Amino acid sequence: MTESDFGSGTGQDQELDTTVLIEDPGPEVPSLEDPGTEEVARVSVVFEPSGKQVRAPVGVNVFDVASWNAIAVDSTCGGHGTCRKCRVQILEGEVPAGGVDARAFTEEEMEQGWRLACQAAAWSDLRVHVPPLTTRPKASTVGVGRQVIHRPTVLKRYLELPEPTLTDQRPDLRRVMDGITDMASGADPQVLRGLPKILRSADFKVTVVVVDDILVAIEPGDTSDRVFAIAYDLGTTSVVATLVDLINGMPLSVSSMLNKQQRYGADVISRISATMLDPTALDSLQALAHETLDELTEEVCVEAGVDRSEVYQVAVAGNATMVQIALGIDPEPLCVAPFILAAEDYPDVRASELGIKVNARARACLFPALGAYVGGDIVAGALACGMDRDQRVRLFIDVGTNCEMILGNGDRLLATAAPAGPAFEAASIACGMRAAAGAIEVVRIDDSGLHIDVIDDAAATGICGSGLVDAIAELVRVGLIDESGRFVPDERAAELAPQVADRLVMRGQERVFVLAGDPITSSGVYLSQRDVRELQFAKAAISTGWAILLEEFGIEEKDVQQVLLAGSFGSYLSPKNAIRIGLVPDIAPPRVVSAGNVAGEGAKMAVLSGSERNGAHSLLNVISYVELSDREDFNDRFVDELAFPV
Amino acid sequence: MTESDFGSGTGQDQELDTTVLIEDPGPEVPSLEDPGTEEVARVSVVFEPSGKQVRAPVGVNVFDVASWNAIAVDSTCGGHGTCRKCRVQILEGEVPAGGVDARAFTEEEMEQGWRLACQAAAWSDLRVHVPPLTTRPKASTVGVGRQVIHRPTVLKRYLELPEPTLTDQRPDLRRVMDGITDMASGADPQVLRGLPKILRSADFKVTVVVVDDILVAIEPGDTSDRVFAIAYDLGTTSVVATLVDLINGMPLSVSSMLNKQQRYGADVISRISATMLDPTALDSLQALAHETLDELTEEVCVEAGVDRSEVYQVAVAGNATMVQIALGIDPEPLCVAPFILAAEDYPDVRASELGIKVNARARACLFPALGAYVGGDIVAGALACGMDRDQRVRLFIDVGTNCEMILGNGDRLLATAAPAGPAFEAASIACGMRAAAGAIEVVRIDDSGLHIDVIDDAAATGICGSGLVDAIAELVRVGLIDESGRFVPDERAAELAPQVADRLVMRGQERVFVLAGDPITSSGVYLSQRDVRELQFAKAAISTGWAILLEEFGIEEKDVQQVLLAGSFGSYLSPKNAIRIGLVPDIAPPRVVSAGNVAGEGAKMAVLSGSERNGAHSLLNVISYVELSDREDFNDRFVDELAFPV
Repeated sequence: MTESDFGSGTGQDQELDTTVLIEDPGPEVPSLEDPGTEEVARVSVVFEPSGKQVRAPVGVNVFDVASWNAIAVDSTCGGHGTCRKCRVQILEGEVPAGGVDARAFTEEEMEQGWRLACQAAAWSDLRVHVPPLTTRPKASTVGVGRQVIHRPTVLKRYLELPEPTLTDQRPDLRRVMDGITDMASGADPQVLRGLPKILRSADFKVTVVVVDDILVAIEPGDTSDRVFAIAYDLGTTSVVATLVDLINGMPLSVSSMLNKQQRYGADVISRISATMLDPTALDSLQALAHETLDELTEEVCVEAGVDRSEVYQVAVAGNATMVQIALGIDPEPLCVAPFILAAEDYPDVRASELGIKVNARARACLFPALGAYVGGDIVAGALACGMDRDQRVRLFIDVGTNCEMILGNGDRLLATAAPAGPAFEAASIACGMRAAAGAIEVVRIDDSGLHIDVIDDAAATGICGSGLVDAIAELVRVGLIDESGRFVPDERAAELAPQVADRLVMRGQERVFVLAGDPITSSGVYLSQRDVRELQFAKAAISTGWAILLEEFGIEEKDVQQVLLAGSFGSYLSPKNAIRIGLVPDIAPPRVVSAGNVAGEGAKMAVLSGSERNGAHSLLNVISYVELSDREDFNDRFVDELAFPV
Repeated sequence: MTESDFGSGTGQDQELDTTVLIEDPGPEVPSLEDPGTEEVARVSVVFEPSGKQVRAPVGVNVFDVASWNAIAVDSTCGGHGTCRKCRVQILEGEVPAGGVDARAFTEEEMEQGWRLACQAAAWSDLRVHVPPLTTRPKASTVGVGRQVIHRPTVLKRYLELPEPTLTDQRPDLRRVMDGITDMASGADPQVLRGLPKILRSADFKVTVVVVDDILVAIEPGDTSDRVFAIAYDLGTTSVVATLVDLINGMPLSVSSMLNKQQRYGADVISRISATMLDPTALDSLQALAHETLDELTEEVCVEAGVDRSEVYQVAVAGNATMVQIALGIDPEPLCVAPFILAAEDYPDVRASELGIKVNARARACLFPALGAYVGGDIVAGALACGMDRDQRVRLFIDVGTNCEMILGNGDRLLATAAPAGPAFEAASIACGMRAAAGAIEVVRIDDSGLHIDVIDDAAATGICGSGLVDAIAELVRVGLIDESGRFVPDERAAELAPQVADRLVMRGQERVFVLAGDPITSSGVYLSQRDVRELQFAKAAISTGWAILLEEFGIEEKDVQQVLLAGSFGSYLSPKNAIRIGLVPDIAPPRVVSAGNVAGEGAKMAVLSGSERNGAHSLLNVISYVELSDREDFNDRFVDELAFPV
């Protein structure tokens, strides 16, 4: 995840996964690689009977919109158009019936609005009726178009055991283990504490919980249909929790909040610095991480009507600093040369060690890390994007204060991290703000003047990351910002773009470009010369990073077949403008796609499937880390990259 | 261990292991099977330079006396007379030099009193000078003459690691693990918490601690010569802790105390009943067990100058009730039919889960149990006695409120438990007391009258278990108690044993036999008719138990080649009198030997050697449990066994 994504929205917005942008769309769905759609617009979808309303990128299919907003839609194929079980009724809005629909429904049903959710692209606002579940799907589409077979390592089984007699004096634990020889090889000793009472109070009719071949809990009666896990994306800025029903693979509830460590600074460096200056800060930061995770746990459990003790596994994707702090491990060596991780992997951690109060025996899956700045969040993201499974040459970029990149194909992958700096931090931009109501998220200049889109159609109160990139890209395009990043003189501005030239004004000692309102008052939203400089530094660091990876890989910009922009910031960014300012390689804009919250997706995959979880560990052997800080050419290249492409 | 051994002494006395009674003594040592020595007398041995004074059974060699009182004597052969390193100087007392001494010392040295400790039998009071250790023994004599090779599963190694650089960015844990690939396959995640700081503050010069192939701790600098473990005998009555130096296998300090659970009753049944009547009692009992274990831990650590964090492993031998309560597991099913254990084994428990505050990552070895009344203490005892290694037919008896027995040879072993009742409880005998100063421990009647030995030569204030058995056996022998257990009428008493007949008097409504003082006042010590009945019930339960085992095994009393009396009670008992009252099979008295505190010995073996610890688990496969409570013939046989043999 981005460490500091002021492009990220709050709450549900972060879950608007746009994974289908990458999958080859079926014939009935208008091509998402249509250049006309590359500016990311949004539609509203209301699901009935819950009435839950969500925003989704235009053109995403209803199955995915539902899935990533924790609305259960029947499916056994995982959204591939083959099982024909994801029947929904379009109550409002237009969704043309396609060929697959014609094979799944009668004429009359289609007239009543019945469609297969996985075939129904949301090109406009919709209201959709979702029938209750009738099947248990065996797979889900998770991550970036990844089909994940449900094979969680948490298993339950209801047992009716023979009661002990003087001729059958097997110990309680042996009696239970004899009933599950096919699923468990050992037992957590903590299981014993309540065992005798549970067995006898339940007349030896109990449900066992087995995690990774170890018996971890025994519950009275038949609870075998209640098995839950929580996937966490533990970001420096935002933390997201998704409660997943392991019986059918469906996310049941999602919640997010700002990481409570914010008071120690917005980025990882500030937080590590705090631990270096104050010996008590590590404990405080750890406690704040635990509080954040635990509050989210409470929220998702309450929303889904799940008891905490029914959550038997958690997966946490976080960068190396967040994970080390959450475990109480001194993070200082991460931020001073030579940048050393405490461990690349944490094999056997309990959820409680992360402050997550779920079932006392629940284990936590933590993702391995490649380096101090390419942590478990990036490995989770690489898993979600199938970086080791796709033969195309792809470039994965997670934009943040620190920007992580992975380049390669299924055979060879290179990773690095570049210090992008605070450009994408709301705090470092004069009118910067998070992608919340009032933020300018789209900026366009045409002959008639300046056009902005503001989130929730509110009055503009600031600008978020995607708006910033748009604004600068457009100003470079029309010529008001020159190649070196300077605002051009007024007379030159009036000559090049008379329709917006009068927006270039002085604010105190500084020239600014007015985006909305009056820049002299607090209601004005503007772009300052310093803001442009901040963005230049960020994009130069990032493009130096991927340029070095391209060189190491032995290819050129044009050879990149796909750029995946990870994190919420990425999903709000205009590909065309990202290319224009040189943030990503210069390839056809439709090949630059947003991958969504891939760290969170990776965490979900880890709880849905033991083999996917193992796959995350295998990535360590496939990805080579390229250290930039000891490269002699880094500074020269960085300076070269500061200019905007013309 | 005995669950209620009022035969047991307090403190150091419990450690007077008499294991050599069983080993074949070397040619220079007078045979311990000499019938003249069968009454267990004691000598005093003072060790210099510490000045520590201990009591030991007559004829035990100095090496063993030293060893079981935590006094380190050089040795590499473990007391077998081959290494000639256990040189000590006899300062006071008589120890004739033997043939092995002549090969180890010059004439002059022998004249100065130098002897090999393993060859020097203590036939009289001695004062012995022990030189400081010069070698690290590779084996110890532990248990009942068992030679245990030191191969603890706790290992330390000092590492000087290369410091990280930009070209060697291995994570901290990987850097450490790369230095111990031959000794560790994984790491406890808790190790990570302090890892970065420890490595850097110690300039990457650290000592690793590996337990069972898992890295459990990293310490700054070279601490590789400080590796300790504690073995606990967690008895219902007494708890004993022995701190062992795992570098040389020597016990460094020993401490014992009454189990703090006493306030809930003297035996396991009272304590389990408490948990059934009061839902808070289990927590209280658990806390009391933890307090007992932890106070002993403090005592042995302070005495040996060892920091608690230097103790990396513990082993606990206890009966099933004590272990379940210490782990907080409901013990109720242990005491109601069909008598079910929560588990026969506890593979992966931390010391902290037993309330033992040593190194936070220390593991606890708990012995497996065979049945609700044949617990880990008995398995530890069977390990210490080598029950599965000796081809002789042997009967192991641990006398207590509940009496556990194992019969067999190395190929086949049968175990059972019999409810002996409170006869060996001080509380149930009119003048009963623990084997402390003032207790009558030996009773003898000859033509001149009654003779008693009182512990510490104090005025008699009560009678302990061994004295009780002696008194009744002698009274049966002279005829004052008849076959049925009744005191004979006065006139018959005067006829049969005139020298003591006047000691048979009325005390209130009850006939009693006066052992010391005036039975009407509180200073008198006597044996009542009820006391005799109590002992009859106990011995009948025990002899019914082993008689059924003999029958199941298909042999007769005379086929038993050795009887091992376990627990402190056993080591104070007169074999001749135990046979006379029918407590043990009628075989030659020298074949009835005391085995000492075998549960504690087994626990020591478990920390000294991983293979011995595994051996304890293998015993589960070798020993078959015979349940007495569902045998239809038990009651009839029990009634038959009530009579005394004539």
